[in-house]
Amino acid sequence: MSVEDKRVKRLPREVREKQILDAAVRVFSEHGYHEASMDEVSEVAGVSKPMIYAYLGSKEDLFAACIRREAGLLMEAIAGGVDPDLAPDMQLWMGLRSFFEFVASNKQSWRVLHRQVISQGGPFSEEVLAMRTRAINLVDALLSRVATKKGMDDHAQKSTEAMSAALVGAGESLADWWLDHPAVPTRTVASWLMNLAWMGFGDMVEGNVWTPSAH
Amino acid sequence: MSVEDKRVKRLPREVREKQILDAAVRVFSEHGYHEASMDEVSEVAGVSKPMIYAYLGSKEDLFAACIRREAGLLMEAIAGGVDPDLAPDMQLWMGLRSFFEFVASNKQSWRVLHRQVISQGGPFSEEVLAMRTRAINLVDALLSRVATKKGMDDHAQKSTEAMSAALVGAGESLADWWLDHPAVPTRTVASWLMNLAWMGFGDMVEGNVWTPSAH
Repeated sequence: MSVEDKRVKRLPREVREKQILDAAVRVFSEHGYHEASMDEVSEVAGVSKPMIYAYLGSKEDLFAACIRREAGLLMEAIAGGVDPDLAPDMQLWMGLRSFFEFVASNKQSWRVLHRQVISQGGPFSEEVLAMRTRAINLVDALLSRVATKKGMDDHAQKSTEAMSAALVGAGESLADWWLDHPAVPTRTVASWLMNLAWMGFGDMVEGNVWTPSAH
Repeated sequence: MSVEDKRVKRLPREVREKQILDAAVRVFSEHGYHEASMDEVSEVAGVSKPMIYAYLGSKEDLFAACIRREAGLLMEAIAGGVDPDLAPDMQLWMGLRSFFEFVASNKQSWRVLHRQVISQGGPFSEEVLAMRTRAINLVDALLSRVATKKGMDDHAQKSTEAMSAALVGAGESLADWWLDHPAVPTRTVASWLMNLAWMGFGDMVEGNVWTPSAH
């Protein structure tokens, strides 16, 4: 077998895995984990069931692979959207915008990642916990940079992990709310969380609003 | 049968239902929904299995009843802790403290309400969604009072439901983080969320911290 043949054989596997995962995200988000059938994933992907099992394992493995891939894409989107040379508030703003833009253009992923897992539960809680830990660490790194740059006091600095957990929870919950209020523009929902996180209600009730143009 | 007899017969049912629910919360929080056995609930409650089925239904019904009761207690604790005549920030502070105090003294309830449901999922997502909606409405009522009192602008006022969803998510996520960091005092964890929600990171990085004594 020539080198070319091998390459030709290897390339389709990656392409097929992507097709399978794309199809699986769509099917899982539409029907939920328990109701989703491997027959439908096979049909949507245009890949035979035996090949799905060979490449990505059982339905449970496939769902876990979906969570891992989608979570990875989300983390990359957020981390890639933040420029560490920007002012702290702009870093947070870019991170939040990247998050909501990801949710807006990957609503199916978000449903699989978050809603389906919460309502289906079971063997995937580990994957989700790992994903949340990565998200919290990402936000923590951002907030710690902010804290170091601006000289946040010791007490506040110690608490950045806890506040990162709070902010991740706020983002998740607001994204869920947003799925039920799709008419709200991405920028608006991002600016609400930015104002809550950066300005706080104390400033908001005084009419002080954070806007990217003002900074 | 005399009136006294009837009353004697009715009272034990309420007492027994409470015993059953107390036992069920403990057993579910220790073993998770799927691993929990009705035998153990029966043993811990000191109530026979047939009586549990007669009073509270199947294991699924029993778990749903636990969620409803614990969610109700949590909402009462928060609503009861907030005095609408206080300054807006103090209202938020009292609400947050009540929430974290509830979690601190009802860790088993919180595990059942939140963690177990997320990891077990299934037929309880409706109960949990209903509970979250109540929590969001409660926070929304508080924030809307704040907004009305202090003249929050239209845009901000429209967004209170969304921000309430964000704040509820932040509280849930921080409470989960806290379960893994039990050495942090209740007041500290409450003050972190208060500072995030009221002051925002913008003030925190400048060293401006909200404390109840300063208000």
